[in-house]
Amino acid sequence: MRDFSRGHEWLSINTATVRKQWRLDRIIEECARRGIRAISPWRDQVAAVGLAAVAQQLRETGITLSGYCRGGFYPAADAAGLAAALDDNRRAVDEACTLKAPCLVLVVGSLPGALDGKPVHRDIARARAEVHDGIAATLEYACKVAMPLAIEPLHPMQAAERACINTLEQALDVCDALDPARSGALGVAVDLYHVWWDPKLAQQIARAGRERLLGFHVCDWLTPTRDLLNDRGMMGDGVIEIRQARGWMEASGYAGHAEVEIFSNDWWSRPAEQVLDTCIARHRSVV
Amino acid sequence: MRDFSRGHEWLSINTATVRKQWRLDRIIEECARRGIRAISPWRDQVAAVGLAAVAQQLRETGITLSGYCRGGFYPAADAAGLAAALDDNRRAVDEACTLKAPCLVLVVGSLPGALDGKPVHRDIARARAEVHDGIAATLEYACKVAMPLAIEPLHPMQAAERACINTLEQALDVCDALDPARSGALGVAVDLYHVWWDPKLAQQIARAGRERLLGFHVCDWLTPTRDLLNDRGMMGDGVIEIRQARGWMEASGYAGHAEVEIFSNDWWSRPAEQVLDTCIARHRSVV
Repeated sequence: MRDFSRGHEWLSINTATVRKQWRLDRIIEECARRGIRAISPWRDQVAAVGLAAVAQQLRETGITLSGYCRGGFYPAADAAGLAAALDDNRRAVDEACTLKAPCLVLVVGSLPGALDGKPVHRDIARARAEVHDGIAATLEYACKVAMPLAIEPLHPMQAAERACINTLEQALDVCDALDPARSGALGVAVDLYHVWWDPKLAQQIARAGRERLLGFHVCDWLTPTRDLLNDRGMMGDGVIEIRQARGWMEASGYAGHAEVEIFSNDWWSRPAEQVLDTCIARHRSVV
Repeated sequence: MRDFSRGHEWLSINTATVRKQWRLDRIIEECARRGIRAISPWRDQVAAVGLAAVAQQLRETGITLSGYCRGGFYPAADAAGLAAALDDNRRAVDEACTLKAPCLVLVVGSLPGALDGKPVHRDIARARAEVHDGIAATLEYACKVAMPLAIEPLHPMQAAERACINTLEQALDVCDALDPARSGALGVAVDLYHVWWDPKLAQQIARAGRERLLGFHVCDWLTPTRDLLNDRGMMGDGVIEIRQARGWMEASGYAGHAEVEIFSNDWWSRPAEQVLDTCIARHRSVV
């Protein structure tokens, strides 16, 4: 297992972590200043600065991506909505290529309308079938341009609104169905916030294997957790055994970044310099 | 599948649903008045009225129990804590016998101290091992007095504080280990609020079978959900396909009550008469 205590070359910052404080160009600049070598940006943050400008800044600073956030959100109220989602996913793949991302992360979506509090139906099995077909379609295109897709299982508390793939086992079942050859074109992003509770976590990380472990996201689960979306903790402040899980990842062949992704009203209210410095410190002491 | 639309003989009220409005003796009286034939009371509500008095009121009204809430909470900070938990579970079994409950529901507990925001450790695997041993000990006693135990898997968002058994599959694995003969002494309580999201729900209900399906709890999952504990919805107000799941239960041999258990700051703030009347109406129209 790699020793993270002496440096942070394997630290990546998911740029949502400081999205309320800084624009993406500032985030990249501040990461470069601190010797942070990788980020995972969100599409809206890239669009706010401009895709070409971000690509150029990445080249200039030498910062690479650990992933690109995000594709997915396939289920829709009607056929036109489904088609629009597929188009949008192609654009996300293209952007990921421009930014030389190692993978496009998929938050797959669930009941259409639920995110706005108005689900148009309650048939999660239908949503799951649409997600399966949607990933298949995006995968066909992504393979042509050699962009791997990483399915991110989301915590079951987000099953209605954001993702109807809720366990690593379920995500890997989709991988088995759509890429039985384990080509590396389709895999998973393991975000510990979403999967830490799973009694089958170690078993399913082992099942995934090197070809399918495309991302590793860390933060912490707070007790109590006061909000279903924006109360994630800094590594070390909660109950997730992060280093144990990293051990499982690495035993299974994962050798990439530990990407810090913290959606938190608390951390968003602090100076972003403090947030990044704390990420570096906790990466060394806790991850 | 039973037709619930014409009456409510299979409705049970979990008494937590109106716990903020009424004492247990009033709840029983109001249920009797409405032709509600079953309840599932909590230990603290029984204690507030007195065990003997509750038993007598149940006899007089002819109301039976669909379950007794609750045993469990095994993991503790030290050996003395574990021993105290085992003692307390024996008392819970005895009370369940006095009230002629069909089963004692187990909310198994998880990281000690986490419920108070101060987890004494983060080793959920250890908590799970302690839960396994705790259930085994309670089961030995419960078998002597013929009181079935129903493990209730809790939603993964409650994995740190309240229960480290978080899927039906995991609960059934414990049943297989501790009661391989499927004697009926150990089974599960299927609360749809906790398990509705599970892609393996239908499969695991079928696996459980009649001997192990000891309880069926209903309410609904709201979008958005604003609180991790006390924002459950009334049946029909959320996204759970309740009748589909009841179909799976009955196809697997379940023929007991549909127990309404709603922890909700919203419903607790309404007149309890309205809550009970709505439960009856939704039982007929939605469950």
